[in-house]
Amino acid sequence: MLKEDERIDQVKLDGVKIIQSKDVFAFSLDALLLANFPSIPKRGTIVDLCAGTGAVGLFARERQPETKAKFIEIEIQPRLADMTKRSIELNEFDNFEVLNIDGNDATKYIKKDSVDLLLCNPPYFKVNEKSPVNESEHHLIARHEVKFTLEQIIKTSADLLKMKGKFAMVHRPERLLEILEEMKSNNIAPKRIQFVYPKQNKDANILLIEGIKHGQTAGLKILPPLYMHDEEGEYTKEMKEKFYQRYE
Amino acid sequence: MLKEDERIDQVKLDGVKIIQSKDVFAFSLDALLLANFPSIPKRGTIVDLCAGTGAVGLFARERQPETKAKFIEIEIQPRLADMTKRSIELNEFDNFEVLNIDGNDATKYIKKDSVDLLLCNPPYFKVNEKSPVNESEHHLIARHEVKFTLEQIIKTSADLLKMKGKFAMVHRPERLLEILEEMKSNNIAPKRIQFVYPKQNKDANILLIEGIKHGQTAGLKILPPLYMHDEEGEYTKEMKEKFYQRYE
Repeated sequence: MLKEDERIDQVKLDGVKIIQSKDVFAFSLDALLLANFPSIPKRGTIVDLCAGTGAVGLFARERQPETKAKFIEIEIQPRLADMTKRSIELNEFDNFEVLNIDGNDATKYIKKDSVDLLLCNPPYFKVNEKSPVNESEHHLIARHEVKFTLEQIIKTSADLLKMKGKFAMVHRPERLLEILEEMKSNNIAPKRIQFVYPKQNKDANILLIEGIKHGQTAGLKILPPLYMHDEEGEYTKEMKEKFYQRYE
Repeated sequence: MLKEDERIDQVKLDGVKIIQSKDVFAFSLDALLLANFPSIPKRGTIVDLCAGTGAVGLFARERQPETKAKFIEIEIQPRLADMTKRSIELNEFDNFEVLNIDGNDATKYIKKDSVDLLLCNPPYFKVNEKSPVNESEHHLIARHEVKFTLEQIIKTSADLLKMKGKFAMVHRPERLLEILEEMKSNNIAPKRIQFVYPKQNKDANILLIEGIKHGQTAGLKILPPLYMHDEEGEYTKEMKEKFYQRYE
């Protein structure tokens, strides 16, 4: 089942298994944070856009094991889409589909206005921001907006979501203003924002945001902050619960 | 010096004195938080818009005692403007001016593009949001957007600020989206945001935001969170340093 450079990651000993490879792209804590952020519907359709190795969708499924929702993992890179497929088999999940397509084409494969929850852990960096000359194409596409920009991602998300469907994204706080502008342009009303801090007395380095398509714009909540590390540099208790143990 | 319903508030025993009256409007911790948020310039012009009893400007002056900057307190209500004037006399500050005017007329009294720092602790509530039938006119004007809306406040601030001048505001997190939209419309780039939480595991209830007129939009920072109370319901150490002792 595993190729030479691959390993299986598992957050909990009895938890969901995810095939990973540092040669292409490995999921980070960001994926776990996102999967734990919105409530996971018990039925309907859940899309994981920019799925990578499928971590966000797989962790979301783990949180709500009794869900009858269909999970659709969208990933442009064939190698990553293939790893996601094998992870799904490994976990014997039967309510998953993997689409190895360009996210910009998603509405050709999924009906517009049909999705209940859209999860997205997108590329964080603008193409001109940090010159990615030394990165492999796999990492380049996963981390930089080469194939799928923030504007395109939020537009696509809004197209896919049904009325009152939920959009949930993890990103960098530096991009907050653009995210809010694109959400507004696409009629997704921000409802919950949570900032994650590397430790006390540091600026936030991760942003979690949830919105509702055609929701009311009043009533934004800023949730309690999350801290990644304590003062000794250890993961905080809340993070340890999300932390993964690697074996194989 | 004091009228019947008035008292003098002081944060520190040797600190700035502020004449207050619960009959009209008393400053809150929000004013202290705002005065402590931006760096206070050592020269130039500092405007306290929606000054109330002048608390924000007076606390800002206290933080930077050697400043040669001129402070202009703008307050529409004659009674509050008069209290501010007497507080300034009480503290023997000679670099203050009080303008008892409608904030919308500020550019008739202060040169456009001339202000180095604009501080604002505005009315928090939309007029239609909570029906303020039982409030005195003093409290109504101070707390509700009867005379000065968020849109007008940020427009006026942008008009007054010089190129690269700083805008700093305290508000409610529910209004974050509108604040960011108005700042964008008026070319004030948000640079620093800090959320204040009533205690751990609660949503934020105060927002501090700083922007730069005609600044670059990249590089927004979300500062470490502030907590008002600890788990025992006591003010946290960081808040105690800002907390005020009342006497007289």
